[in-house]
Amino acid sequence: MTEYDVLAIGNAIVDIIARTDDAFLAEAGIQKGSMTLIDTARATALYGAMGPAIEMSGGSAANTAAGVLSLGGTSAYIGKVSHDQLGTIFTHDIQALGVVYRTAPLAGDPPTARSMILVTPDGERSMNTYLGACVELSPSDIDEDLVAAARVTYFEGYLWDPPLAKDAIRLAAEITHRAGHEVAMSLSDSFCVHRYRDEFLELLRSGTVDIVFANEAEALALYETADLDHALSRIGAETRRFAVVTLSEKGCIVVEGDRRIAVPADPVSAVVDTTGAGDLFAAGFLRGYTAGRSHEVSARLGAIAAGRIIEQIGPRSFSRLDELDAVRAVLNG
Amino acid sequence: MTEYDVLAIGNAIVDIIARTDDAFLAEAGIQKGSMTLIDTARATALYGAMGPAIEMSGGSAANTAAGVLSLGGTSAYIGKVSHDQLGTIFTHDIQALGVVYRTAPLAGDPPTARSMILVTPDGERSMNTYLGACVELSPSDIDEDLVAAARVTYFEGYLWDPPLAKDAIRLAAEITHRAGHEVAMSLSDSFCVHRYRDEFLELLRSGTVDIVFANEAEALALYETADLDHALSRIGAETRRFAVVTLSEKGCIVVEGDRRIAVPADPVSAVVDTTGAGDLFAAGFLRGYTAGRSHEVSARLGAIAAGRIIEQIGPRSFSRLDELDAVRAVLNG
Repeated sequence: MTEYDVLAIGNAIVDIIARTDDAFLAEAGIQKGSMTLIDTARATALYGAMGPAIEMSGGSAANTAAGVLSLGGTSAYIGKVSHDQLGTIFTHDIQALGVVYRTAPLAGDPPTARSMILVTPDGERSMNTYLGACVELSPSDIDEDLVAAARVTYFEGYLWDPPLAKDAIRLAAEITHRAGHEVAMSLSDSFCVHRYRDEFLELLRSGTVDIVFANEAEALALYETADLDHALSRIGAETRRFAVVTLSEKGCIVVEGDRRIAVPADPVSAVVDTTGAGDLFAAGFLRGYTAGRSHEVSARLGAIAAGRIIEQIGPRSFSRLDELDAVRAVLNG
Repeated sequence: MTEYDVLAIGNAIVDIIARTDDAFLAEAGIQKGSMTLIDTARATALYGAMGPAIEMSGGSAANTAAGVLSLGGTSAYIGKVSHDQLGTIFTHDIQALGVVYRTAPLAGDPPTARSMILVTPDGERSMNTYLGACVELSPSDIDEDLVAAARVTYFEGYLWDPPLAKDAIRLAAEITHRAGHEVAMSLSDSFCVHRYRDEFLELLRSGTVDIVFANEAEALALYETADLDHALSRIGAETRRFAVVTLSEKGCIVVEGDRRIAVPADPVSAVVDTTGAGDLFAAGFLRGYTAGRSHEVSARLGAIAAGRIIEQIGPRSFSRLDELDAVRAVLNG
């Protein structure tokens, strides 16, 4: 029996979001569109240089857990904060949504992780992440009952950055499979794929991961190719169940063995901030998938959720996504 | 010689903003549209009950200082935070804008103030403020050089809530007048006026305050009347220079002795969140006034700034207001 549609595991982060321009990114040496890890000194310098910001709970897999909830599903989350004001904010926001979250916070340093997200006028976000308390996530944080009770255990590739989280994921995957459930992962970021390519490929080939989410750049990076068709064939052949590759405004392709299903993107009124687009796509897809919907219907839900999140600032929807007519129509259709 | 258009003094607060509905306000016993002071226990209970939020620097007079900057003016700010994560956020945001802010933070408890702002579907905001470190603001925080260097010293009536801030204001007013400059105040909130009516009237009648900003409810509360015409006559007669009374969508009236100038509101595309409307009106007015513009032009700038801030979430503009054609036209017209 499952109690949750999705258990998400990831770096628990508060986003610090500011608008900027391309000149600032160039001057600060920031890789546009990517996630760059930064240390305390760089965090202090960058914060001092950037403009006024707003703060909002983030974290890739946490955004997905929040998205599943907002879409009317059920979810739980595992991720590490510290016992500080940002940790209180993160904990409040995810629990207030209804996501089950009970990972023990660190008592002291390092502080709760934060990502300084710079949004350019084209809506693209560039993330500068100080991992803080996330480096302490370890197998002891894996709540076996929580993991076993989830239909899908979903984690972010970013977890290969902190030292012990990968062990936590391997443990969680074992528990998940023992319970007869499935493991999904996001490849997170093309630079992250470059850092951990061999390990990510091993996760797929060993069947540790059943379902993989990637965007085009990540899929290409995984196979060190510029040929999307080639990458799609490989990822479809190597993923135990199926892969979902998102192509921004060109929609997505679900690849299951040699079967491919293309689903268009949802129309977007204005790209305000792309932060959370991939996370919310995964939320929509998993909401559909865990409700027993087809890959096509699941991908349409993903496209709608991603479309709505990029029309606003930040990666957590300001309103319930399951109140949208389009979401209701797809879920009930 | 003046270095700053406006020096603002107020409670330094980080806003925690969430959408809610009228049923939640009723159940939680929250006075809609007002600012209610809360203690630690109430803050914890309310935060536990409210939904996911976003955080943004706030504080009434701080929003005005930020608005003056955003409108192309110069400003400084005095207000007390603690040496904690919310204090770091507040300090970063106001300094990153270019507002001169150097009040010494508290080393320890109480923590930085926060206001839980609940926004209903009609865009109205209801504020629940835990004053925290603000209760420590005292005359020793009044930087004489900063005060003397400002064309207008502006403070919020809310400062009568913490115990020592009123002494800080009286000192700042003395310094301002000695430098040959002017003191402006906002009446802040009708309940605040009820709490401190006699003292606020004394500030006007003694000439401690030269310019007063009030909304309709505050002006009526000040004279314990339901007759706006009567309140306008009184406030015009009792304020040393002039009073500006805002009337929401009906615009505002500048009252200087028995002369009255009515200026319409600026069209608003959609009322998203009224947080900061009064603060930004004051910012626009003071930006015009300190640049030597007429009361009418100044009030039009106030109306534009207020109009823009209620079209977004939170009290700090996401973009520079002096880049708006309407602002440029009024300032250069």
